[in-house]
This record gives sequence, C-alpha cells and structure tokens, in this order.
Amino acid sequence: MTPAPFTADDYKARMERAATSAADAGLAGLLVAPGPDLVWLTGYQPTATTERLTLLVLAPGQEPTLVVPTLEAPDAERAPGAPVLTLRDWTDGMDPYSVTAPLLEVNGRFGVSDNAWAMHLLGLQQALPGTSYASLTESLPMLRAVKDAHELERLAAAGAAADAAYEEILKVRFSGRKELDLAADLADLLRQFGHSQVDFTVVGSGPNGANPHHEAGERTIENGDMVVLDFGGLKHGYGSDTSRTVHVGEPDAEEQKVHALVREAQNAGCAAVQPGIACQEIDRVARAVIDEAGYGAYFIHRTGHGIGVTTHEPPYMIEGEEQPLVPGMCFSVEPGVYLPGRFGVRIEDIVTVTEEGGHRLNSTARELAIVE
Amino acid sequence: MTPAPFTADDYKARMERAATSAADAGLAGLLVAPGPDLVWLTGYQPTATTERLTLLVLAPGQEPTLVVPTLEAPDAERAPGAPVLTLRDWTDGMDPYSVTAPLLEVNGRFGVSDNAWAMHLLGLQQALPGTSYASLTESLPMLRAVKDAHELERLAAAGAAADAAYEEILKVRFSGRKELDLAADLADLLRQFGHSQVDFTVVGSGPNGANPHHEAGERTIENGDMVVLDFGGLKHGYGSDTSRTVHVGEPDAEEQKVHALVREAQNAGCAAVQPGIACQEIDRVARAVIDEAGYGAYFIHRTGHGIGVTTHEPPYMIEGEEQPLVPGMCFSVEPGVYLPGRFGVRIEDIVTVTEEGGHRLNSTARELAIVE
Repeated sequence: MTPAPFTADDYKARMERAATSAADAGLAGLLVAPGPDLVWLTGYQPTATTERLTLLVLAPGQEPTLVVPTLEAPDAERAPGAPVLTLRDWTDGMDPYSVTAPLLEVNGRFGVSDNAWAMHLLGLQQALPGTSYASLTESLPMLRAVKDAHELERLAAAGAAADAAYEEILKVRFSGRKELDLAADLADLLRQFGHSQVDFTVVGSGPNGANPHHEAGERTIENGDMVVLDFGGLKHGYGSDTSRTVHVGEPDAEEQKVHALVREAQNAGCAAVQPGIACQEIDRVARAVIDEAGYGAYFIHRTGHGIGVTTHEPPYMIEGEEQPLVPGMCFSVEPGVYLPGRFGVRIEDIVTVTEEGGHRLNSTARELAIVE
Repeated sequence: MTPAPFTADDYKARMERAATSAADAGLAGLLVAPGPDLVWLTGYQPTATTERLTLLVLAPGQEPTLVVPTLEAPDAERAPGAPVLTLRDWTDGMDPYSVTAPLLEVNGRFGVSDNAWAMHLLGLQQALPGTSYASLTESLPMLRAVKDAHELERLAAAGAAADAAYEEILKVRFSGRKELDLAADLADLLRQFGHSQVDFTVVGSGPNGANPHHEAGERTIENGDMVVLDFGGLKHGYGSDTSRTVHVGEPDAEEQKVHALVREAQNAGCAAVQPGIACQEIDRVARAVIDEAGYGAYFIHRTGHGIGVTTHEPPYMIEGEEQPLVPGMCFSVEPGVYLPGRFGVRIEDIVTVTEEGGHRLNSTARELAIVE
C-alpha cells in the first residue's frame, strides 16, 4: 500500500520547525543544498546536482526562498513543497551568490547542509565576509532525527521489506556462486518488495567479510564461509538497512563463538535504548560486551547511524556523541567483529526510540543461519 | 576495443602536473575530494561519498597523501593510483581534520574540489584558521581541461558511440509513444554501444522542448512535434554528450526557420574554435547569429561546457570566460532556441581544439531529420 504523499502543508510545517530550531541554536538561518535535507524540507530533488547553485534559504520570520537556476525553475515549481516557497531564479552569466546575499543577514551565522558544495560555501563567504557557517551536523544535527508517525510508518514498511528480502535470500544457493550474484539477488529482492532505490548490497564472504566496507566482488563463495549480508535502500522515500551473517555449511567453534558474541553485543545495544540515554551509551554498551570477550580490537567502527530519507545520517551511536535519545529517533545498532584474513560478523537492526524503550524495525532471526 | 587502463605512472604524472600547476597559481596545494578530480588524479572512487572524510592532499615537494577512513583503506589500496600514494587512515571517533592538518601549510591557500562537502571545508577552516581556500573552478579551472592523446581517444570513442545511438533512434517510431519510452530506448542504445553509465537522456517533445532542462516525461509524442534529443554518459570512463532536434512528420515554415538558425549558430560556434581564442568568444559568435535573427531572448543558456571524466566540467563557453582555448581542450557547442509553450531546438557536438582549429567528435547529420 502506497502511503499518502506528504503535502505542501507538511513541508511548510517542517520548514517552520527548522527555522525555529535554527533560531534556538543561535543561527540566523539555514542554507540547504540539494540532497536529503532539501528533499525532507521541500520534496524537491533536482535531476542532477551540478555546479549551478540551488539553495533553500530558511530564516526565522522570512519567507522560505529557493534560489534556483532559471533552467531548473520549471522543475522546482512542480516540487510538492513549491506552493509554500518563493522561487528566486538566476540565469547563466549572473553571480548566484550576489542573488543569494540579500536573503542573508550580513553578520549572521548560518547552518549549511553537510553536502553543500565547498564551491558554493566559498562563494557565499566571499560575497558576505561578515557571515559565518557551521555544518548542519555540527549546528543542528537533530534537524531530521526525530521522525513523526507518518515517517515511522514508512521506515517500518522499508524494514519489513528488507526482512522479506532476507527471508528469501536464505532459500537461495550460496556455495559455488559469486558474491556479486548474491548481491544482484538481494537487489532484485529489495525491488521486488517495493524499494525504489537500492543503496548497498554487501556480500562479504570468508576473508572479504573482515573488511566492513567490502561491497561484493568476484570471489566465489565456498562451503565453510561466513558471509556478511548488509543491504538496504529506499522504499516510499524512507530507508532500510539490515545485516545478518550466515554460514555456508557447518560453522566451527570459533565462528559460533564470535557470532554469539556479536549477537549478545547487538542485543545489549538494543536493550539499552531509552529516552534520555546518550547516543554514545549505546556504543559503549555494545562495545563493552565485545571488549570483555577480548575482541575489542576487532570492532573497528561505530555502533550505529541514524536513518530516514537517507540510509546514513545523524544521530550517530559513537563515543563522544552526548545527544540524548528522544522518542521518534530511528537508527541502526550494528556491532561487528572483523578478523583480518579470516572472516567477519555483523548483525544490524534499525531501532526506533519509544517512551517504553527501543523498538526494532527488523525482526528476522538473529541466530547464525546455515545456508547451502 | 577496450583501451589499455591508465597506469600508476600515468596517475603519478597527473599528480605532479597538478602540484606544479597549483604552485604556479600561487597555491600551497590542492585538496581533492571524491569525485571526478579524484578519479582523474588517482583512479580511486569510493563506493559511496559519505560524511566520512576522504581527501587527497597534493602539495609541491610533498608525497601525495590520501586521507581515508580506516574502513575504506582496503578499497583505496586497490585503486590504480595507490602505488604512488601514501595512505593516512583515520578511525571513527578520531577527528579527521586533525589528521589532515599536519599535511597542510598553516597559512597556505589551497585549491579545493568544487564538490568537496561544505562540512569538510568548515572542519579544515576550523582546524587551521590561518589557511584560506578557493574552489578548483576558481583557482585552477583548467586542471583537467587539456586532454592528452589517450583521453582524446576515449572521448572520440564515446562520441562515436553516441552517434551510433542517434542513427539507431532515427529508425524508431516516435509518434504515439511517450517521451520516457524514447528515453529508455536511448539509454539502451548508449549501453549497447559500450557506455557503462548513462548520465542523461533528454526527450523534449513539443512544448516540453522549450524547457532546456526537461528530461523526459509522460507526454505522448504526436505527429507535428519537434523533439529535442540530448543524451550522453560515460564509455571507458570518458564522456559523450550530443543533441539533435528531429521532427515528427513535416515541419512548418517557422520550425524549419528556427532549426536552420540554430544550425547556423552551431556551425558558427564550431568554426570559431582556434587555439588562443577566448572561451567567451565561442558563446558570442553563436549568440550573435541568434540575436541578429531576433531570437536572442529565447537562447537562455550558455553555449557549451567542457567534457572529460564527467559530462559537465570547465571550460565553459560563456560570456565572461576569458580563458584562451588550448589544443587538447574538449567541450560542447550547443546553442538552442526555446519558444515557451511551443517548441525548442538544440544542436550539440563535442569539439576538441587542435592546432588547425576545432575538430568535431560528433558527425551525424545536423539537418532537421524527419521521424515517424
């Protein structure tokens, strides 16, 4: 079932909330470049992100204004948030920063999308030398972090679709096939279960599993391999991301031990989720389990990341992140152990914060599944 | 025929040339983020561009160093340019800007990739307040602009493949089909003729053709429509980009007149290409033809853009660009006329500068083709 699309009023409410949050954070406004922030605030996604400046300017008490190349104005006018936006277009040959400058307080401090092009930031710094800037992750990291009921519904549907893909992949033959073939199967399954976009399909078999960012390659999967599966994408505009580690044939004692350890760490991380707990606490709790078992040196990444209109966003479950959890936040809990040259194990669920604690949006079995 | 891959020595030569050009431009070095600059300099393209800093630091008299997340170091080590790079990895929880800072002159001015994330630029500005920055387009716009023989060979092959796709699309039925169907045909043809990536397949029929950035939509093409076709992508890592405007059935007098006018302007632009001529001169020459015929208000974009490892890069053929043409440069010449609510016409070839003048890499007929 396709959820009802977000309306211009929904986007208006988000923009107002963002402008208020900016003011509360001591910012004169927000400068939003094409990408997830712009999609979330306006529903607008240019066909391509190019060197031509497109920038949403949000400031408290000011009409939300989208600076847009004249060429792209007809597309922008069709965006779902366009009815509540003022468009200010600029034509090739004009200086887009001079067009933007009158919208900004000359000595203001602005939050700017993480992924805005450096070129554009430099253009604004030059046009208005009195302004200063901070990335949105630094200045307003929680802008999109707390999801409303309509967003949580989409995230749950994306998670359920990823789970359905996992259930199907367990029925598929692994042994004798290439990682890339399994990755293609996973991508097909995600699409079959309603994903419009597949962001990643990691199939890390044997020693490849020990590189947490290995995607999938030419390696032929063999009997006796551990295989890390980590896949996700977007369904109805919201993300899925889940990992399970499976074994081809019977695992040996250490494989079982490491898998059980990661499962224990992942359960501990999920169980620690409570409103008011700091993000770093989730990382500490999961890491402590692995540290105490003597595998701490092999858990070489943070425990989790937020998810929403992207599969990778704040809040981060990482040492140093003191942001308290708030109901409606949604993020991964995904500890792992990576033994170089041998194998890796990772288990990952998306968890949403409720008043009662963490609620997982992935519910497939976490025991070590045996595949053929 | 697949061209021989670029070697570590090729990348070394490019990095040395870039460091020298930086010094000549008064820069202390170049900071290169994932994207076309990094691909061109090192052959390295991370699986995804995320908030985790990956940055190549090139400075005269210093080892080229790639700052890379530990997670991604194994991938970076496999890049074709890796043998001539020093890798400096950083782990989640470390401050990547503190890791990068010792590689930079504390009061230096640096060129930074246009598309580097604003977040990362702000991190460096904060870590080293004495440094200053300029985008590569501003500080070293011609870094990748002059192509060597191996690159020109790839660009010619990509152009020939796009031409073959155009020849085939002329045989296809237009009338009664949706723009999106024709766009899918074009994408299939580009892939069939060796493209690994399709960047755009514009099919602008009737009034949609009057929006130069319209891609392709649900509109059903009818007898009597002008149809702008503009398509391209990457083959063997180098770009194609060509436009032709066709007509379904017999064109009327004004359609013929406007098409002939754009053809004349495009020919004039191509004929003006000579080493030493300023880029803006190509724009002026093409624009003058259209202005003099009274259609100047309907030519609403610049005349062209460079092409190489991307389909859209410096040099730009635009008023104000005084950069002289140099043999080996490669760019589009693509004037157009757009009559709102009625139709558009655009004709585009990729042209490379030789000692003798311009040489077109697209050679399909430019007369108004009649399709069914």
